[in-house]
Amino acid sequence: MHRSPILKVLLFASLTVLISNSLSHGDQPPISDDTQACIECHLSVNPGIVGDWQKSSHSSITPSKAIKKDGLERLVSSRELPEDTEEYVVGCAECHMLNPDVHKDTFEHNGYRIHTVVTPADCSVCHSDEVRQYGDNLMAHAYGNLQGNSLYRSLVDSINGRMSFEDMKLRSMKSEADTDADSCLSCHGTEVKVKETRTIETEYGEMTLPVLSGWPNDGVGRINPDGTMGSCTACHTRHQFSIETARKPATCSSCHKGPDVPAYGVYSVSKHGNIYRSMEGEWNFKNVPWTAGRDFTAPTCAACHVSLIVSEDGRVISERTHSMGNRLAIRIFGLVYAHSHPRSPDTTIIKNKAGLPLPTELTGEETGNFLISGAEKDKRLAEMKKVCLSCHSRGWVDGHFDRFNSTVRSANDMTLAATKILISAWEKGLAKGPDRNDSPFNEAIEKKWIEQWLFYANSTRFASAMGGADYGVFSNGRYYMSKNITEMFEWMELRQKSEK
Amino acid sequence: MHRSPILKVLLFASLTVLISNSLSHGDQPPISDDTQACIECHLSVNPGIVGDWQKSSHSSITPSKAIKKDGLERLVSSRELPEDTEEYVVGCAECHMLNPDVHKDTFEHNGYRIHTVVTPADCSVCHSDEVRQYGDNLMAHAYGNLQGNSLYRSLVDSINGRMSFEDMKLRSMKSEADTDADSCLSCHGTEVKVKETRTIETEYGEMTLPVLSGWPNDGVGRINPDGTMGSCTACHTRHQFSIETARKPATCSSCHKGPDVPAYGVYSVSKHGNIYRSMEGEWNFKNVPWTAGRDFTAPTCAACHVSLIVSEDGRVISERTHSMGNRLAIRIFGLVYAHSHPRSPDTTIIKNKAGLPLPTELTGEETGNFLISGAEKDKRLAEMKKVCLSCHSRGWVDGHFDRFNSTVRSANDMTLAATKILISAWEKGLAKGPDRNDSPFNEAIEKKWIEQWLFYANSTRFASAMGGADYGVFSNGRYYMSKNITEMFEWMELRQKSEK
Amino acid sequence: MHRSPILKVLLFASLTVLISNSLSHGDQPPISDDTQACIECHLSVNPGIVGDWQKSSHSSITPSKAIKKDGLERLVSSRELPEDTEEYVVGCAECHMLNPDVHKDTFEHNGYRIHTVVTPADCSVCHSDEVRQYGDNLMAHAYGNLQGNSLYRSLVDSINGRMSFEDMKLRSMKSEADTDADSCLSCHGTEVKVKETRTIETEYGEMTLPVLSGWPNDGVGRINPDGTMGSCTACHTRHQFSIETARKPATCSSCHKGPDVPAYGVYSVSKHGNIYRSMEGEWNFKNVPWTAGRDFTAPTCAACHVSLIVSEDGRVISERTHSMGNRLAIRIFGLVYAHSHPRSPDTTIIKNKAGLPLPTELTGEETGNFLISGAEKDKRLAEMKKVCLSCHSRGWVDGHFDRFNSTVRSANDMTLAATKILISAWEKGLAKGPDRNDSPFNEAIEKKWIEQWLFYANSTRFASAMGGADYGVFSNGRYYMSKNITEMFEWMELRQKSEK
Repeated sequence: MHRSPILKVLLFASLTVLISNSLSHGDQPPISDDTQACIECHLSVNPGIVGDWQKSSHSSITPSKAIKKDGLERLVSSRELPEDTEEYVVGCAECHMLNPDVHKDTFEHNGYRIHTVVTPADCSVCHSDEVRQYGDNLMAHAYGNLQGNSLYRSLVDSINGRMSFEDMKLRSMKSEADTDADSCLSCHGTEVKVKETRTIETEYGEMTLPVLSGWPNDGVGRINPDGTMGSCTACHTRHQFSIETARKPATCSSCHKGPDVPAYGVYSVSKHGNIYRSMEGEWNFKNVPWTAGRDFTAPTCAACHVSLIVSEDGRVISERTHSMGNRLAIRIFGLVYAHSHPRSPDTTIIKNKAGLPLPTELTGEETGNFLISGAEKDKRLAEMKKVCLSCHSRGWVDGHFDRFNSTVRSANDMTLAATKILISAWEKGLAKGPDRNDSPFNEAIEKKWIEQWLFYANSTRFASAMGGADYGVFSNGRYYMSKNITEMFEWMELRQKSEK
Repeated sequence: MHRSPILKVLLFASLTVLISNSLSHGDQPPISDDTQACIECHLSVNPGIVGDWQKSSHSSITPSKAIKKDGLERLVSSRELPEDTEEYVVGCAECHMLNPDVHKDTFEHNGYRIHTVVTPADCSVCHSDEVRQYGDNLMAHAYGNLQGNSLYRSLVDSINGRMSFEDMKLRSMKSEADTDADSCLSCHGTEVKVKETRTIETEYGEMTLPVLSGWPNDGVGRINPDGTMGSCTACHTRHQFSIETARKPATCSSCHKGPDVPAYGVYSVSKHGNIYRSMEGEWNFKNVPWTAGRDFTAPTCAACHVSLIVSEDGRVISERTHSMGNRLAIRIFGLVYAHSHPRSPDTTIIKNKAGLPLPTELTGEETGNFLISGAEKDKRLAEMKKVCLSCHSRGWVDGHFDRFNSTVRSANDMTLAATKILISAWEKGLAKGPDRNDSPFNEAIEKKWIEQWLFYANSTRFASAMGGADYGVFSNGRYYMSKNITEMFEWMELRQKSEK
Repeated sequence: MHRSPILKVLLFASLTVLISNSLSHGDQPPISDDTQACIECHLSVNPGIVGDWQKSSHSSITPSKAIKKDGLERLVSSRELPEDTEEYVVGCAECHMLNPDVHKDTFEHNGYRIHTVVTPADCSVCHSDEVRQYGDNLMAHAYGNLQGNSLYRSLVDSINGRMSFEDMKLRSMKSEADTDADSCLSCHGTEVKVKETRTIETEYGEMTLPVLSGWPNDGVGRINPDGTMGSCTACHTRHQFSIETARKPATCSSCHKGPDVPAYGVYSVSKHGNIYRSMEGEWNFKNVPWTAGRDFTAPTCAACHVSLIVSEDGRVISERTHSMGNRLAIRIFGLVYAHSHPRSPDTTIIKNKAGLPLPTELTGEETGNFLISGAEKDKRLAEMKKVCLSCHSRGWVDGHFDRFNSTVRSANDMTLAATKILISAWEKGLAKGPDRNDSPFNEAIEKKWIEQWLFYANSTRFASAMGGADYGVFSNGRYYMSKNITEMFEWMELRQKSEK
């Protein structure tokens, strides 16, 4: 990897020509000197980053022009830009040099003060509405909601903790930071901190760089070195930040595909997913605003939950929102029972009557005060239905949601049956639960209980919500809900016999 | 959602201009007055429907022109069109106003008699051959074949029925209509009926609309309000009805992806699926007829089972058929054992010697009279091989089917081993089977037996039929067949000990 | 299928015109007389093969021109071509008539000596480097490494062997050749031999053709009738042999998708897969060399493991290699523990201290001499990191691999816990292991042990290596590792009680 100094000079010279050619053809808007300096080395060191950015809107329009776009076409939501926003496109320096004093990961780099981790606060310079809205999401709080909930932390430990078997005894340790980061926190987000600096040899000489813990990560609730929460790149992938990517369902599949949250799988087999997969090549994923029936003929995840959608005649069907909860009345996954959405995105404040950090009792009743009201649920449902109605008749839409509500109730009932069996097992001493100061997640029968709600009831509800056919039957759906109850019951019968 | 009357007038005016612009450019064929009236409101109310339809062939050619297309290019199969088929494209009114007296879902709507559910009888005005052929399919009978088979109804109940646990007893109820519709019937089809009418407020004033039970649904064997069976939109998705969608495998994946019928997953990892997924962008999915080697270089589901395929020199490789059974000698999924295809698409007439509504005995022997003859099997296999031979040599094709037949036999043997264990368990009183008037599907050991044939043997056979590699081994294939037998056997051993 | 002689003559005539038209337009390079003769019949018999080939590079450039391409653009790696390579494109005859005396599948066919199975030796005429490199792969030895390893053969038997249940006894047979070919060997490769010849009726008269055993097959380690190992068409799909297909991940998914090697699933939900799936339509998959950041903005399987990648300024980021092991330090799947890569691609030479044909002891320690050194591991990791660094910073890349190494260690620990439970069960007589001359794979508890490493630890490691989120948690990841240990432990507890 070492190159001679002469070679370096030649490389620099040829790169400069290359940059001039490839970056400045015609009316290409100007690049700041700082960004130009970044590119001079990084075009060689990380050509993929530079190439990706060159394809972005960030590299082809200045913020001051972008903010002047008309109404619905405008992607810069900030009402005004900082005074020092000059007539340059948004390049490396414009993001990685913002607010250097607030960023604990700022380091001195060839005369510049650079930070590695670009955060929502950095993005909010131009995209303030989106960042503000996003903060209202459960997702923005995904780190704390997991780590700060004693019950869910014990679930994490039961999954990630190293286990050992010695002297006929099974031992389980608390999980380690590296494992959590590679596991749950890869989606929930890590806490990113500077743990040390390291000096390394590079082709441009010695460099001293910060070493970050919890890095790499682009989880949705990442705790950043500037104190903010979230990672815009979770969906708006670096360094092209293409709206096309964010609008396509593959993006959401990164975190929403497993048995615990099978949204992507369900979508794929739904009519919507079927149309998307066969027609996407003929759709326009770049137009802003996005016209239903012309730019696309079936919704992607973004179309229902996030995007600004208009009709052919320019009427706004649904506003752009980065508070995805706005159209969701019921929270259908991740918890023991489906329930009304929490009022606050910080769910660590929730406690049920039994003192557990859960939005329902173990027997399913909602803990009212922490959850949204019936009126708010109606409002959110109405908001979602607006999207549905752009392609479906009233009768279709109402029928769909009536059926969905019925499924939410029956799936909760199936969870209740499984829970009652588990409670019986605890009471009879066939397993050890919270009443005996033990985790409710670490024994075989408890793991079956987890799967009842975290896998099977979730899958059944998602299938109902989005038309996912077999995800409500044999693909982790109702077949597994009933099978699991049967097996839990037979386990208890057998255990009772063998205990005698 | 309320708009002032003046706004409405303005909206109407602008919509009219818009429709003129977007629908009538150049030699755009004429739209009937009735359809024009539909669009005037629905372009605003359901822009996605109108936009989708505008991209369809239905909106760009009149039936009277379409019927005159030459030989293999013709998509209108009816020999002649009804006298009242005027020189208009097929729009809203042309389908939703057909046969109003036969449609029990017909309602009075702003001076028109409209029905919601467009049925095979409606489509058959132009596409009579396809509708007739489709009626010969098991799929057309998918509702009755499930609901009218006492054994399969008890399977449905064991999956969908609500369960409860009280006083150490497990109870299971019969399944409810809403649950069935959200579960098995989402693919099999519901029975759609008018249950009441409802009057709602709309932006165009008060409207009285029918409320349908079993709606929405586009299952393949739907029982329609005009008495017909089936739903063409199961594959020919509304309202573009694009042949491109029907030819792509995503369409079939809606119902053929779960562990019970893993056709899509198998296809995806097969050579065919691999070529499709890497080359589809360069193929032509719209040409009629479809030329092997030019329009596409590997088959999709439709290519083998449905489509009219020709060679470069215009020779017909395989005729279009909507009787998919025509090329299928053996029925490899859904039943306990693979067996010769049933003669009649209505399988409720089948009874085996033991009196069970099954095409084989519980020990695998075929119940001859209800199933096709050896000669018919040979004919169907020869028909399928024609498609294979367009890209494979004779030796390849024969070798493939010899191996497939061997797999069908060995998978049946593995099911037999599991069945014999279960029968032993019933005989020994370790479980309760039909001999004690109990469902064969509701106990833990019985559920393992279900999985033996419904999941693992099926997956193994599909993998063999379509080259699905791991679907025949670790992805629900042979590994699970042998593991399941081992576990069933050990379960019985353990139970026998604990009963002592 | 019979046609009259006159029809045949007409068909021949029209085909000849068709071939002239479709194959010889403009400066189309010449087709050899032998290939022309093949096409004359096979265009009608197997139009898909001919059509596919017409789209290939093979049909559009002669080897003698292709070998003269400049440096990185050259795909013909052989330094020189055989003297008899004339100025014809690579058609049917150029491959299927090579080395007729070495090919045991050569047969007399209308005056030509043809072989069915084209092998690496045939391809190496032009692509000698690739064939030589490929021979260094574990994949080239995939047949022998499975069939010649007594332990793995017993695993195969336990999966594929037919089972029966009679007189309350479970019996398991050795697996059959047809089943193996349809199962494990569909990826590993079969041994292809001529078993007999068969004379059949065709539309061109009677033909005598060889019947091959183990055919069809395109497994990566296929034993060919000319004695070579491997099948280039496993990735370079017939008969287009498109580099586009080989570069796309669907190709690898054929064998690398199941729970035993979930690479494709992991890739799909990774950031790389997400970008690929949303952007592939805008990428260039045909350019040689392949420019990171311009032709593609996220890697596919090939980009990291095989392809020649350059940067915008023409610098080589990574050399093309068909020895995929070159960038892989640790072998993370298929064996009980992750371990340093074997030195030799023929792993049948490996024995651990306990005498088992495994690269580690049952308790995880590496059997040093057969595996690569630490220095070699460092070199391979550095080679891989070069690819990563084209789009990621040093800190990102180092952080990623530190975390991956931590996961490799913890997943091995979780396998150790499961193994110790199994060893205890063997010692206590609750199951029969190798110490009692029994297979370690054929009892229920042993099958749980298999899944611990073959499914769950593998999935966790792949998720870590490639950023696969839930594949390291709920999609066969850590949740299942810990659940499985818990269940194995409870199984032993229960068994001990019932044995008393």
